[in-house]
Amino acid sequence: MPILETIQGPADLKKLPSSQLPALAQEIRERIIRVTSENGGHVGPNLGVVELCIALHRVFETPADSLVFDVSHQGYVHKLLTGRNGPEFDRLRQSGGVSGFLNRGESEHDAFGAGHAGTALSAALGLATARDLRGDAGHVVAILGDAAFTCGVTLEALNNLATSMRRLVVVLNDNEWAIDKNVGAIADYLNHLITSPLYNRAHREAESFLKKLPGGRKVFEFGQLVKRDAKDFFAPQSAVFEKLKLRYIGPVDGHNIDHLCRYLEFCKRSENPVLLHVRTIKGQGLDAALGNPEKFHGASPYQIETGEPKKAAKPGDAPLWQDVFGRTLVECARADERVLGITAAMPSGTSLNLLKQELPKRYFDVGIAEEHAVVFAAGLAAKGFKPVCAIYSTFLQRSFDMIFHDVCLQNLDVTFCVDRAGLSPADGATHHGLFDIAFLRTIPNTVIMQPKDEDELADMVRTAIEFNGPVFVRYPRGAAPGVPLKDKPSLLPIGKAEVLREGVEVQIWALGVMVAGALALAGRLETEFPGVRVGVVNARFAKPLDAELLLAQVRTAKLFVTMEDHALAGGFGSAVLETLNAAHVATPVERVGWPDEFVGHGSSQEILREANGLSADAIYGRVSAALRKA
Amino acid sequence: MPILETIQGPADLKKLPSSQLPALAQEIRERIIRVTSENGGHVGPNLGVVELCIALHRVFETPADSLVFDVSHQGYVHKLLTGRNGPEFDRLRQSGGVSGFLNRGESEHDAFGAGHAGTALSAALGLATARDLRGDAGHVVAILGDAAFTCGVTLEALNNLATSMRRLVVVLNDNEWAIDKNVGAIADYLNHLITSPLYNRAHREAESFLKKLPGGRKVFEFGQLVKRDAKDFFAPQSAVFEKLKLRYIGPVDGHNIDHLCRYLEFCKRSENPVLLHVRTIKGQGLDAALGNPEKFHGASPYQIETGEPKKAAKPGDAPLWQDVFGRTLVECARADERVLGITAAMPSGTSLNLLKQELPKRYFDVGIAEEHAVVFAAGLAAKGFKPVCAIYSTFLQRSFDMIFHDVCLQNLDVTFCVDRAGLSPADGATHHGLFDIAFLRTIPNTVIMQPKDEDELADMVRTAIEFNGPVFVRYPRGAAPGVPLKDKPSLLPIGKAEVLREGVEVQIWALGVMVAGALALAGRLETEFPGVRVGVVNARFAKPLDAELLLAQVRTAKLFVTMEDHALAGGFGSAVLETLNAAHVATPVERVGWPDEFVGHGSSQEILREANGLSADAIYGRVSAALRKA
Repeated sequence: MPILETIQGPADLKKLPSSQLPALAQEIRERIIRVTSENGGHVGPNLGVVELCIALHRVFETPADSLVFDVSHQGYVHKLLTGRNGPEFDRLRQSGGVSGFLNRGESEHDAFGAGHAGTALSAALGLATARDLRGDAGHVVAILGDAAFTCGVTLEALNNLATSMRRLVVVLNDNEWAIDKNVGAIADYLNHLITSPLYNRAHREAESFLKKLPGGRKVFEFGQLVKRDAKDFFAPQSAVFEKLKLRYIGPVDGHNIDHLCRYLEFCKRSENPVLLHVRTIKGQGLDAALGNPEKFHGASPYQIETGEPKKAAKPGDAPLWQDVFGRTLVECARADERVLGITAAMPSGTSLNLLKQELPKRYFDVGIAEEHAVVFAAGLAAKGFKPVCAIYSTFLQRSFDMIFHDVCLQNLDVTFCVDRAGLSPADGATHHGLFDIAFLRTIPNTVIMQPKDEDELADMVRTAIEFNGPVFVRYPRGAAPGVPLKDKPSLLPIGKAEVLREGVEVQIWALGVMVAGALALAGRLETEFPGVRVGVVNARFAKPLDAELLLAQVRTAKLFVTMEDHALAGGFGSAVLETLNAAHVATPVERVGWPDEFVGHGSSQEILREANGLSADAIYGRVSAALRKA
Repeated sequence: MPILETIQGPADLKKLPSSQLPALAQEIRERIIRVTSENGGHVGPNLGVVELCIALHRVFETPADSLVFDVSHQGYVHKLLTGRNGPEFDRLRQSGGVSGFLNRGESEHDAFGAGHAGTALSAALGLATARDLRGDAGHVVAILGDAAFTCGVTLEALNNLATSMRRLVVVLNDNEWAIDKNVGAIADYLNHLITSPLYNRAHREAESFLKKLPGGRKVFEFGQLVKRDAKDFFAPQSAVFEKLKLRYIGPVDGHNIDHLCRYLEFCKRSENPVLLHVRTIKGQGLDAALGNPEKFHGASPYQIETGEPKKAAKPGDAPLWQDVFGRTLVECARADERVLGITAAMPSGTSLNLLKQELPKRYFDVGIAEEHAVVFAAGLAAKGFKPVCAIYSTFLQRSFDMIFHDVCLQNLDVTFCVDRAGLSPADGATHHGLFDIAFLRTIPNTVIMQPKDEDELADMVRTAIEFNGPVFVRYPRGAAPGVPLKDKPSLLPIGKAEVLREGVEVQIWALGVMVAGALALAGRLETEFPGVRVGVVNARFAKPLDAELLLAQVRTAKLFVTMEDHALAGGFGSAVLETLNAAHVATPVERVGWPDEFVGHGSSQEILREANGLSADAIYGRVSAALRKA
């Protein structure tokens, strides 16, 4: 019987003899590889923390102790060890299966959910403070990747940690490779810690000393001995963490369960905050992933042997939206030397790597630091450049204040390419991009557009770059519809919609990816309601809305329909309501969009649409009912 | 003739003999004290940087060189030295006068505007990168207070600075006292730099050595000599900055113009990023301010001799909204030990200092770190506590992503007291709180309320704390209406509005501070439109809206009016439109709120309302016209 099947929770793990742990690790790796090869997921990060998670659950006692995983896409092993190793794990990231992230609703062992990087240390400090206020005894462990140290919020927490001096274990899971290669001083510094010969010698000595000790109690005694004076023996180069009053220990081999347990036991007994620097290898155990950590950070379903995607792109396939953006940006940058590209650690996810390849001096990766990315862009724009920030819709939330103050209030010429606008079905609530129109359109000076196809995306990228002011171009993940691209993108008139189908009584205003469905809906309505002429408008702009066209249509329209891949609360349809309202028009409007709820993960766009009243049939049902009443 | 009057710009300043500079500094101080004693403003921060700004403009050449002031509330001296020393300065922060912050629209010498802390380093890195891409020669200087180092975005920039190694001067204006006493490891670290005896000895030696040199050129040569090996002579304790590849120099007496010029010349010649640590005294030159740096950070008009406010609070005056919040929080915290208070460096501004005084262990100041504040609160709530975050509306923008993910998505029990919701007339566009409803109500799980008076504020604070989930209570700056407070706040039913005046044909839905105007408007409408019965609803909740009451009123209403102290785009009125729309109701709605524009600074609420179509007469005009059409 496989060992993993005997593990119904951390208590079972603790009963295993140490000698069985490597075999368990192997089983876990195989399970993760099997499931992610079918479902896709964060392969590399999870294969890297198998031993670390086993050690954490051997040493600590969840849920009494809290493990806080930063970003929490590396939580698969934790899930398998905490009662989620049945069929729910086979359906990882699919409807009815476990989420790809930690989720307080899913298990009492999930102390804190996450989906964006950098929050673990702040959350852990909150949990530790709560524990101390209650006088409880539990432990709080924050597990952070090296990339977390590029996020402002981690650094804010680090600053506060020193003041509070809460009992807290910080595990730095250092794989020297975040989503893309990490940037900045802190990454260099960590690297320096590892490569310093002086350090390594000291570490080897420390390790051999530790090895001579006969076990936990002795480690503890050693811990009592190793006070301030002796710490340099451990880490003579660790001045930065020490200045921040985080006692530094490490680095430890993150694939040696015995070592990890021993060091974690030592950390557990520390009365002050302590940082354990653990070296792991992303993708450990899967050859294909080891050779390509970037691709296997978050992978689509893949062939286990070769690492090739199961659905390989074929010649003639429609391009990805992101690639059309990336290629258009390169063209625009070639044509105008003021054009620059900025990413916050997502060069491949946003296809900004195309710019990196072609014009490396015009390309900037600032690390997972969306706030800095936007102010940096504003600084460039203040000197006459035309920076383009490519940031996922969900991550753009991080820079809301900077978009407001540094860019829009100063009316600076920054273009935002808002990728992953719409659903990210397998990732779920932490990654859907369903709110950007609402939080952006309340800011004065914003121009917000979304293309119906990739040719129009190219037009919009060019239009946004040439326009002198803040523009946001939103588009979804995945493949575009597959229309031919013009030789050169056109300049679109700002705030003008496109009439795709003339109508009289009904006018459907659709934004972006909803246009195709709008055309189908119009056809079906005309069939079912003979004599009713249904128009379709490709809105193009969520702001400024084409009020002129909208109000001209009021003369004959009995019903407007708005369609958006976005939340209804404050979204595009709401902007249409505001425009009609300001013009004192009472024509009924049927708004189609996402309800005021968090949408979870699911196997496909279609399943999630179906479940939220957004299937073609459901939309037809609502609109036809509204038409009957109109 | 006063020297200041001869200074039409930095060129004039450079012509002055050094011997006249102390007298100029004295004149500038007197001018700032005279103007701020009349108009209010950031007294302490500006009196602290008089010599520093003189030295900056002696050494650097704006606008060819860029000075980037963090937060930029310390820009008065810079304004006086760059052509804004006429009547426009006397009208500082008033209608027609200069802004209290840097503003690119105001002067070519204002390289970058700001209003929230922490953005200077990112912006400066953008400006320096632009310079290098162009191959220009100019200098970029970022002037940061010590508090900036608690902001995540500063730390993100610091991490990036090291990678790019742009030529950049960072002036750390260290007064050891940010808005309130600074918190955290970095503050302690700076303090350690200053107080270390070893350091001070080394510094004195370095200084006496520098003093022997005959001027700029020699300083430069010295700079060439002082390479890596010699740097410890300057700052043996500066490991953190050095690890971040920022060459550390200092500290320098920030009130000695000669020293400042000499060190700045040295920095100007550095080919790599360099940090000059300048010690200044907040409020230097005004005895009252020296004794009370917190009060004189941002002061109301005051008596120069005593420092007492010109409009002192008298017994019987209406309390400040913030004080009613602070007192209610203390009561709630006394009654329930799960209640905690969190501020991001604004204990006096939010009146959270009342909690600090009464229950210090239940009070947390995390520094200017709104992102950390919110995740920390979420961590506390995840363990069953009831944290209350008191954050100004404008600063809440910083934590939008954390509100979304860490609090609302996990449906954690955090209360947000959103102070300064509405106008901050003298501060202007960077500080108005006119957007929070829009960016919060698009997030699922949010409850958003605003009280009509301070008694209802107490009810709402209690209601929010007792409710198990995220709640936002917004209220403005300044004095409340002055109604009596009940002995104990009531629990309000979530999502229920209050009918203040029964009506039939017209129903005015007013939120918060707009209720009083709504009642006056209703009276005027009934007088002018005999037979029309005008109702007034105190909406209380922007989300969830009282749809039941609204839809019941539809039966008789010919016109709805919404009134909010918030932007119309996506705001409360928009939520009313959405609710009516979802119910297929076509009753006309006249929405009253702020237009889709940035509102600047002005002498009073009334002047800004008048200018934006929000005077009582203008509102009456619009509503009566709508009523005639209805």
